[in-house]
Amino acid sequence: MTMKKVNQIKIGRNVTVNDLVKKFSEIGVMGAGNLGKSADILEMMIKDKDCKVFLGIAGAMVPGGMQNVIIDIIDNKYADVIVTTGAILTHDLVEGLGFDHLQGHSSLNDAELYKKGLVRMYDSLMKSSAYIVLEKFFDKNFNKLKEAKNIREFLSILGKNAPKNTILNACYRNNIPLFCPAISDSGIGLMIWGKIARGMKINIDTFDDMKEILDIAWTSKSSGVFYIGGGVPKNYIQQSMQFSKKAKYGVQITVDVPEYGGSSGASLREGVSWGKLEDKARYVDLKCDATIALPILISALKDRLGNI
Amino acid sequence: MTMKKVNQIKIGRNVTVNDLVKKFSEIGVMGAGNLGKSADILEMMIKDKDCKVFLGIAGAMVPGGMQNVIIDIIDNKYADVIVTTGAILTHDLVEGLGFDHLQGHSSLNDAELYKKGLVRMYDSLMKSSAYIVLEKFFDKNFNKLKEAKNIREFLSILGKNAPKNTILNACYRNNIPLFCPAISDSGIGLMIWGKIARGMKINIDTFDDMKEILDIAWTSKSSGVFYIGGGVPKNYIQQSMQFSKKAKYGVQITVDVPEYGGSSGASLREGVSWGKLEDKARYVDLKCDATIALPILISALKDRLGNI
Amino acid sequence: MTMKKVNQIKIGRNVTVNDLVKKFSEIGVMGAGNLGKSADILEMMIKDKDCKVFLGIAGAMVPGGMQNVIIDIIDNKYADVIVTTGAILTHDLVEGLGFDHLQGHSSLNDAELYKKGLVRMYDSLMKSSAYIVLEKFFDKNFNKLKEAKNIREFLSILGKNAPKNTILNACYRNNIPLFCPAISDSGIGLMIWGKIARGMKINIDTFDDMKEILDIAWTSKSSGVFYIGGGVPKNYIQQSMQFSKKAKYGVQITVDVPEYGGSSGASLREGVSWGKLEDKARYVDLKCDATIALPILISALKDRLGNI
Amino acid sequence: MTMKKVNQIKIGRNVTVNDLVKKFSEIGVMGAGNLGKSADILEMMIKDKDCKVFLGIAGAMVPGGMQNVIIDIIDNKYADVIVTTGAILTHDLVEGLGFDHLQGHSSLNDAELYKKGLVRMYDSLMKSSAYIVLEKFFDKNFNKLKEAKNIREFLSILGKNAPKNTILNACYRNNIPLFCPAISDSGIGLMIWGKIARGMKINIDTFDDMKEILDIAWTSKSSGVFYIGGGVPKNYIQQSMQFSKKAKYGVQITVDVPEYGGSSGASLREGVSWGKLEDKARYVDLKCDATIALPILISALKDRLGNI
Repeated sequence: MTMKKVNQIKIGRNVTVNDLVKKFSEIGVMGAGNLGKSADILEMMIKDKDCKVFLGIAGAMVPGGMQNVIIDIIDNKYADVIVTTGAILTHDLVEGLGFDHLQGHSSLNDAELYKKGLVRMYDSLMKSSAYIVLEKFFDKNFNKLKEAKNIREFLSILGKNAPKNTILNACYRNNIPLFCPAISDSGIGLMIWGKIARGMKINIDTFDDMKEILDIAWTSKSSGVFYIGGGVPKNYIQQSMQFSKKAKYGVQITVDVPEYGGSSGASLREGVSWGKLEDKARYVDLKCDATIALPILISALKDRLGNI
Repeated sequence: MTMKKVNQIKIGRNVTVNDLVKKFSEIGVMGAGNLGKSADILEMMIKDKDCKVFLGIAGAMVPGGMQNVIIDIIDNKYADVIVTTGAILTHDLVEGLGFDHLQGHSSLNDAELYKKGLVRMYDSLMKSSAYIVLEKFFDKNFNKLKEAKNIREFLSILGKNAPKNTILNACYRNNIPLFCPAISDSGIGLMIWGKIARGMKINIDTFDDMKEILDIAWTSKSSGVFYIGGGVPKNYIQQSMQFSKKAKYGVQITVDVPEYGGSSGASLREGVSWGKLEDKARYVDLKCDATIALPILISALKDRLGNI
Repeated sequence: MTMKKVNQIKIGRNVTVNDLVKKFSEIGVMGAGNLGKSADILEMMIKDKDCKVFLGIAGAMVPGGMQNVIIDIIDNKYADVIVTTGAILTHDLVEGLGFDHLQGHSSLNDAELYKKGLVRMYDSLMKSSAYIVLEKFFDKNFNKLKEAKNIREFLSILGKNAPKNTILNACYRNNIPLFCPAISDSGIGLMIWGKIARGMKINIDTFDDMKEILDIAWTSKSSGVFYIGGGVPKNYIQQSMQFSKKAKYGVQITVDVPEYGGSSGASLREGVSWGKLEDKARYVDLKCDATIALPILISALKDRLGNI
Repeated sequence: MTMKKVNQIKIGRNVTVNDLVKKFSEIGVMGAGNLGKSADILEMMIKDKDCKVFLGIAGAMVPGGMQNVIIDIIDNKYADVIVTTGAILTHDLVEGLGFDHLQGHSSLNDAELYKKGLVRMYDSLMKSSAYIVLEKFFDKNFNKLKEAKNIREFLSILGKNAPKNTILNACYRNNIPLFCPAISDSGIGLMIWGKIARGMKINIDTFDDMKEILDIAWTSKSSGVFYIGGGVPKNYIQQSMQFSKKAKYGVQITVDVPEYGGSSGASLREGVSWGKLEDKARYVDLKCDATIALPILISALKDRLGNI
């Protein structure tokens, strides 16, 4: 067995992000090495024309300044299918409707924030008046939304009618199927509840769009999975791999760890036992705050991939 | 300000779990202190006749040996409403149908496990043949299940027809409403997909049962929240508090931390800014593996509460 | 390969801690299973008359209420050698000199605490006036302490002159060698600095007592390692195993994880590559707050071991 | 109160690391925001001519490819005082003596690695034959080393005689005082033990160099603290601040969290209660793998600071 050495990297001046990430690949171990490998594997799965990239996104990405980075992923077609949380889509829509998130601090007094109409997500704040504007948006669009029969269709209509600078609209305009199994668990869910509580009718089936994501997984020659955080988005893609074809590539960014047994922290390797991942797949588990790792990876990918 | 001292506890012989937990309350700080407080606050919220207890459960609780502990919570009516994940209900049903989870190890070779028909959840294993038995169960019960119009009804019918030694049946027989917003993200979801993929019809609305959980939250005099892990179960209860009444009591057990901004690791205190938790609420964030903390808390509660 | 099933435990009334821990052993997986195994392996290593138990202790154990639990370990001779941090010995001495730690909260205003003369360790507080009493103690005992030529001797003299209800004195009176390689990194270190800054002389060799710990490791028939937290105490014992005999038993309690590469979070298994641990050793990595796990383990051990 | 908005950053092509870090500053929250702030505060503390920068370094930095990054910090005089662990200095010397670390994997079989003479630090490997070369180095230099009377002097002599491409030599040639309170807890410690076990004499005082670090802290107009990881290096600098002047600037990079009470995970803010940090200090706690964050910060600093 010949082993590669850990390269003790040197940092010069005016280094580009992509150059730094390439140096990280030469380290080959620990966090930096895994960040380097993540870029390499993402590059592979995106370049591989036979491969559909399934992207799962969870966490406070929009309150953490990542909305445009995600929109950029979509506009560059680095992903073919997206699964996310209701919270991300709500934050996304709120930003799109003109409500910036604000820089706060984790030690702010929450009772005072409540009085001031500010809600807190760790050190990021949002005006609670955003819900009023959100409500108006749903008043205006409810009749269109109720045409949907499943969640993917619901989100497609939502995206069509959402402002351009949203993840929702970016998926719509790029024709990227967007899934959100737990859509009721979100501000968007609460808006729909507000309608049905007043007797309005809508019927969005909870199982129906499983056909669509499983069809995509079945019919693609191969698959790559890219998880930003865990939760439902990761697990929903994982189970789609299990019941179709094993993924050929995998990158996950999370700070959750395997030892407590939950799906969010589970190693990608564990997926081999389930038939979710090929034994010979190229994959890496990156332990890093996603708001740090994601812009670095996208910067590297943009330099490597140019216009695909 | 008079301050309580940290009691340097002494351990005798034949100590009961409840006695140890009481000593932990006298420490008053750090992990042990928070475990002590958790028992005290749970005791309060369960004894408070005006209070409805909303229990959220996520994570690998059944592969981790907690199925009967959770059934015990339900049979003792320590919770009035339960929100959980599809994975927990799938593991629960699999155990109920006679498939034990097995003791493995995290360093087992996943490719070999796959060949042997064993799937891995960290160091717990399950025979993949469980899916065959699961499929038969859904073949048999599909016609009943399709009578449901929303997820809560679907789970109620599932519980009625599930074996007695399941969380599903325990909720049914005790008339505890059980919610699972992301039910499609699970083995149960995959079973239903198997049916609709072959043209069978079922229509389970994804938003409809929000009315029920929000009605319970609105009509109860006060609420307590008890989170075992984070994910959708925690967030779904949190948003129900936000759009009804603030919780008066709160206990959460998780190893996730707030610094990364996600909902799972968010401190309960953050909920004050959202109007999810009363500023004067009694609450505690316990950082502990739930498979350790939960049996300890239930043991203490059984000794303290007797038959309610 | 026959596999043990994960026992779905049931909790009765008036359960003793030891009974609960035995049930945890029957789970066999995840956190609870590892806590069960920890008790079983500690029982083995303590009962094994040929085995010397090397105990490493780090973290805020005394501010967290664990002082008497640790003293109990020493008085019951569950450990043959102890390595710890200067902070633990400082907190220990401060408690022994009559300064209780106090119950605070992590959200207290630190600038106000400073004005009030209270120092904070997460949610535990200590009066900063403790340093005055500590200084008097070292004024009184400096002439004795300067007789020591290495750190172990220094701590032995300190223990002889410390109040009875201290870890320091318990080690002295039970003739348990106590090591603290980073003694200068502590309030005790600062007290000695206060003397030498005023021209007083003391010469405590930093390498000299390595002979003693390595001699114990070499001359014992076998060794067991028990780590409460990581840091220097763990690593110092680990390197003593590496340069003598591999440990036969190992238990570590920590919430640190291996992925970041540091010694504190390193798995015990990694020690096999170093020759620190026998390949066939009985060992377990327990991810748990030590202020929760330790009293549980000691309670179980007292019931199992009686008077040794 | 006017609040800054969270900037939703956009990533262009050929972005330099420094430009990305500036964008992170405009996010202002979560991990990316804290990385941005870390660069800004480090820039301030290094530019401030009245400020001495105290750098603490712990963790597997050299097996993780960071040796030259740290040497670059020293050669650029970004730090005035360094405190580190014996492990880092051992890995540093081993690399300097020609032993590369090697790229392995965390799932390698440790019993086989042992047979092959490879020791593992998570996924980084080292040949155990490095200890033979290390021993020769100490044979050759022991007579010089025994001239030292305290640990700082010992490390200065070690640095003078170490290969040029080491942290040890870089500190020596740049006249940066290097401290390592737990030097006996390391391969270097074991080498010295090897000598004294064979009757050779050396007397390195464990408390003596506290005078030097505290004198530097007392006599500087102001101080900045920069912690890469926790452990003894962080705590030793923290206590030096406590007994001299409060730090005016602070940056810490760690994945440890405060909730378990240990010093490594303690928030910098907690230091305000101790008088270790000014209430008005500029400081930030960055939760990130240091092998990722450090090269990014150094890249940004090199572009911002040029030749100082």
